[in-house]
Amino acid sequence: MMRFLFCLLSAFVVFPSLAQQVAVLNSPNKGIQLSTVKTVDGSLTYQVQLKGKEVISNSTLGFILKKPAIELKKFTVLSIDSSAVSSTWKPIWGEVKEISNQYNELVLHTTSNGILIDLIFRIFDDGVGLRYHFPVQANFQHFIVDQELTQFNMSGDHTAFWIPGDYDTNEYTYNKTKLSEIDATTAAAKEKDIAVTALMGKNVVQTPLMMKSANGFYLNIHEAALVNYPAMHLRLDQTTQTFQSVLVPDAVGNKAYLQTPFSTPWRTMVMSEKAEKILESKLILNLNEPAKFGDSTWIKPQKFMGMWWEMHIGKANWPLAGGKHGANTANVKRYIDFAAQHGFDGVLVEGWNQGWEDWFGNWKEEVFDFVSPYPDYAIDSLTQYAQAKGLRLIMHHETSGSVTNYERRMDEAYQYMVSKGINTVKTGYVGKIIPRGEHHDSQWMVNHYNRVAEKAAKYHLMVDSHESVHPTGLHRTYPNWMAAEAARGSEFNNAPTLGIIPEHTTILPFTRLMGGPMDYTPGLFHMSLNQFDSTRTQKVRSTLAKQLALYITVYSPLQMAADLPENYEGHLDAFQFIKDVAVDWDDTKVLSAEPGDYVSIARKAKNKDTWFIGSITDENARNVSLALDFLDAGTAYEAMLYRDADDADFEKNPEAYVIEKKLVSKSSNLTFRLQRGGGCAVVLKKL
Amino acid sequence: MMRFLFCLLSAFVVFPSLAQQVAVLNSPNKGIQLSTVKTVDGSLTYQVQLKGKEVISNSTLGFILKKPAIELKKFTVLSIDSSAVSSTWKPIWGEVKEISNQYNELVLHTTSNGILIDLIFRIFDDGVGLRYHFPVQANFQHFIVDQELTQFNMSGDHTAFWIPGDYDTNEYTYNKTKLSEIDATTAAAKEKDIAVTALMGKNVVQTPLMMKSANGFYLNIHEAALVNYPAMHLRLDQTTQTFQSVLVPDAVGNKAYLQTPFSTPWRTMVMSEKAEKILESKLILNLNEPAKFGDSTWIKPQKFMGMWWEMHIGKANWPLAGGKHGANTANVKRYIDFAAQHGFDGVLVEGWNQGWEDWFGNWKEEVFDFVSPYPDYAIDSLTQYAQAKGLRLIMHHETSGSVTNYERRMDEAYQYMVSKGINTVKTGYVGKIIPRGEHHDSQWMVNHYNRVAEKAAKYHLMVDSHESVHPTGLHRTYPNWMAAEAARGSEFNNAPTLGIIPEHTTILPFTRLMGGPMDYTPGLFHMSLNQFDSTRTQKVRSTLAKQLALYITVYSPLQMAADLPENYEGHLDAFQFIKDVAVDWDDTKVLSAEPGDYVSIARKAKNKDTWFIGSITDENARNVSLALDFLDAGTAYEAMLYRDADDADFEKNPEAYVIEKKLVSKSSNLTFRLQRGGGCAVVLKKL
Repeated sequence: MMRFLFCLLSAFVVFPSLAQQVAVLNSPNKGIQLSTVKTVDGSLTYQVQLKGKEVISNSTLGFILKKPAIELKKFTVLSIDSSAVSSTWKPIWGEVKEISNQYNELVLHTTSNGILIDLIFRIFDDGVGLRYHFPVQANFQHFIVDQELTQFNMSGDHTAFWIPGDYDTNEYTYNKTKLSEIDATTAAAKEKDIAVTALMGKNVVQTPLMMKSANGFYLNIHEAALVNYPAMHLRLDQTTQTFQSVLVPDAVGNKAYLQTPFSTPWRTMVMSEKAEKILESKLILNLNEPAKFGDSTWIKPQKFMGMWWEMHIGKANWPLAGGKHGANTANVKRYIDFAAQHGFDGVLVEGWNQGWEDWFGNWKEEVFDFVSPYPDYAIDSLTQYAQAKGLRLIMHHETSGSVTNYERRMDEAYQYMVSKGINTVKTGYVGKIIPRGEHHDSQWMVNHYNRVAEKAAKYHLMVDSHESVHPTGLHRTYPNWMAAEAARGSEFNNAPTLGIIPEHTTILPFTRLMGGPMDYTPGLFHMSLNQFDSTRTQKVRSTLAKQLALYITVYSPLQMAADLPENYEGHLDAFQFIKDVAVDWDDTKVLSAEPGDYVSIARKAKNKDTWFIGSITDENARNVSLALDFLDAGTAYEAMLYRDADDADFEKNPEAYVIEKKLVSKSSNLTFRLQRGGGCAVVLKKL
Repeated sequence: MMRFLFCLLSAFVVFPSLAQQVAVLNSPNKGIQLSTVKTVDGSLTYQVQLKGKEVISNSTLGFILKKPAIELKKFTVLSIDSSAVSSTWKPIWGEVKEISNQYNELVLHTTSNGILIDLIFRIFDDGVGLRYHFPVQANFQHFIVDQELTQFNMSGDHTAFWIPGDYDTNEYTYNKTKLSEIDATTAAAKEKDIAVTALMGKNVVQTPLMMKSANGFYLNIHEAALVNYPAMHLRLDQTTQTFQSVLVPDAVGNKAYLQTPFSTPWRTMVMSEKAEKILESKLILNLNEPAKFGDSTWIKPQKFMGMWWEMHIGKANWPLAGGKHGANTANVKRYIDFAAQHGFDGVLVEGWNQGWEDWFGNWKEEVFDFVSPYPDYAIDSLTQYAQAKGLRLIMHHETSGSVTNYERRMDEAYQYMVSKGINTVKTGYVGKIIPRGEHHDSQWMVNHYNRVAEKAAKYHLMVDSHESVHPTGLHRTYPNWMAAEAARGSEFNNAPTLGIIPEHTTILPFTRLMGGPMDYTPGLFHMSLNQFDSTRTQKVRSTLAKQLALYITVYSPLQMAADLPENYEGHLDAFQFIKDVAVDWDDTKVLSAEPGDYVSIARKAKNKDTWFIGSITDENARNVSLALDFLDAGTAYEAMLYRDADDADFEKNPEAYVIEKKLVSKSSNLTFRLQRGGGCAVVLKKL
């Protein structure tokens, strides 16, 4: 698979007195060119061009270490390796059944301040990955990172889709501004509904960061394979339009405690002239390690309902105290009955365990023990009841941020799950982290999330993490880590201040979802949230048809039907789409997409001939016409459209939809209109 | 047991414009009087007199809270309770078989800044305990302590025996100075051999703090029942001779995260005109809660040998790498053979498990897994070999300070111990603590040590902790927490800089041992430490006879014979004392003691008529004459003396000893001479 291809590489002799190119390497299709330059002052820069357009201008690399206290800014290139890789691999579950992994690799073996560092670049047809590798070497074994100095120098004042840099949360509303207009402080000041925040400064934003240039390219900056390292955010120098990596600190201000051999996460730059190609990129997945577990037969994509949204909208509550305990046996049975009747795989139950009376906001360490159900929750009979009906309970482990407590109890909690026949856990990290001083995105917590995935795998448990660090494609390595929230999810429809604005879900695929599946929890059918509490003015700012389309546009192998059984009962015809939609796929085509405006995606169900399409828009209505040339030739398809009614409108008439059939074929253009804040979900079945 | 005795209490009407006495309460024998005063500015002070001498001058009380951000300095007394308690209890093991618990209690129910606080004083015949209690109350549940403001205002410029205040270690050499001469910075600068230090400032010292006044009393300040709270150190204001409590902070500078109802640890002031009474005090034990476990039959005092000292003195080493691995099967068998032959209960094995090649000094989280023996250590066959010979291996869990790692693995590690038939674990915390930013003595770590004791008890395991927080009598509550190091132990004999000075062991009973048993590891017979490494100049600064006497003067139910089998082989006559000495006692008499000079203690073996005496001196030789009036009347005893030879001297001739028999009775005075740095151990058997 790996072979040396020195012919791919242009290498240059370096003269110390002049800035000199060190090496140039193209992507396999030659569309992307990476060049590295040694400057007069000794630093190394890289630059990236896409079809002749400068995407990344000269950007420096390096580190400041805390221990030993030295700077790694000036590099001497000792030798250069290059190679080409072309392979394919099959994900255990995913958006496509086979993934091509083609790139050319450049390795600069360097020394800086006496320390050996390899700078590794992989150039794909849709972007570039770069990482640092510290090989085993004499006199340098343990080290502490103070700063990573990786730059991403922008070639213009791009339009950016960004959220404020924050050590503890990624649940902000996205902002769309020019780079020169980024102001994270002002943006964050508008947010009132996020439990814990720790802002990083006016000019710091989070990745995945999506940008669009004035001269016709899209660029997404993120990271892949975040292992034993803090999350990367980006600080923008607005005078030079240069981003620099900012790592999340630990309690004493250090960033990472490392030991050779060590490879940093990949810094990823996905780029294309077409927005659709950004969404189709598998670069981040390709830069992650293969699955750690041999046997993956126990890992299954699933659809679930849950005892959850009715707590958010005031019908019930998590604690037993207060008289509105949602997770009581009778109520959960009602969910099981409904979910079983409609073919779901699981029922999530929040508020099942003791501790909710005093769980949040006080940095309290001992909150939940994860093995003590409330007395009105008959877990044994419910789990038997569920299994007799062919589905499983999904366990909820809210840690309230007290991770030391959770880590002490994880083994016992997972053994408890196994003993109850439960194979999926939704974890939560609402609250300031304990160990106190750590952050949701610091190295220690990154290691924790990965540890949860590993330990859960030992017990054959699947994980859906909430309030966790931004995903970086680790679902390839840990395929039981099915999904994460790690962004502003549908629950914010109930948030008083900003809620979920219609364009939010058109940005998510270009940002949060670049890293991996999101448990967004779509499927809300009742848009006025005063159903059980007449004082509430919050509304779901989406049409019902858009809620259906999200099952396609927000990729996850773990999809929730978030609304209440009684809210689905009134719309069983529309609910049929949620029942029918697949959660695992053989193929995916991004038909049409523009961040902040619209997204249309088609997916072919795993091992079936059925295609599904999701099409969504922002606050603007628009006509959509989709070429169906991905369908098989020579056969007719029945297209079942779940579309906005002609008078639908996310503000005035969100629940109005039309279900209609059309006969289509490979040569058809499927046309429909998305109303304001609307969407369309389509099932395409071979006749 | 508890009854109201208002007659004991003098209560006063308080006029707001004048400083007024609030209440006065005497000890049961009226030797100690506590009075509380409300000052004009609203603060509450307490004062303590011993037989008319002022021991604690007016000292204020209170807190500064971080959350809510308020000061609790001014108090309104709402009501006053008093009561008297007189009871006895039997420790599971200990220095005496029954302990009397007699005190008068004063409770001032107060409010400060709208918050209810009870100030609780217990006045014993040998001192005073005070604590704060925050009852359950409306609008005040969770709170964070920024500072505790408890003062101990000294009535004179006493002679003090102190070590520098430090967040992470209590392994300093004791200093003896006037209060006005305390300089922790200068003292600490002389120490070069302590692994991790975090000094607290020039005027901060640790408890137990021992003092002697010019006007004839001894005072020891410490704390009891340190639970869910950081350790207390003391900052001295040298202008006013006033100590104030200083709590060890966590990673973000907070001291304690608390929730009502909460009681702080007791602040203890043990006082007497006789130094011996300080050592006999059971005040700290009485202020701890009774044992948490019903069944304590599995808890057994024991004597052990160990694969340990030979690593310190360079014969062997902990890591497998390097070719000097001590904990190999053959070598451990040698220890087992010797220990079994001489009737020991256990053999400690350090260096048995993988990880020692890279264990310390890099703040590394994943070091040991506690279940992976080195390949040359046949744990199964060794544990069987040991048990066939009637003893047990003692497990070593060195955490290298990575407590998050240990907590994750504790259950598995303890299950592993149980599976190997091992019932005692020596824990170690050498290194900077992880969670990073926490300290050895912070609230989180205090909770950890207590958690270890609780979890170990679930597995019926006994614990001997090293590098842990200063003990506070919790061995009453957790009787499986047999001993702790938590001070400068015998291992420092091998430290290049200060070593163990002869007076050290005469101070330990008045300081460290006030809190509980110490695993000092006495019994060194070979005083030149160049036995296996001719470059070493360190020497044990003790005579051999003093090493024997330490088995009595350093109380522990877990006593090690620390030297190598081959070093005992040459002195089997002296070794007989170590074989004979008990580790659990029916009675203890402190015959004669002066901190920094000498200590003579007699103890009666559990359920036996045999008494043992240990007598030690500092760098000065002295003649000792001990009245044996504690012996039974009307019967003769054979006294076997293990004493310094006439020409013994800790510097010039430390290994010279004489064993001699005497016939004595209750009316005898036992006389012997302690040589410089010397000691005498005596066995008194009924004839």
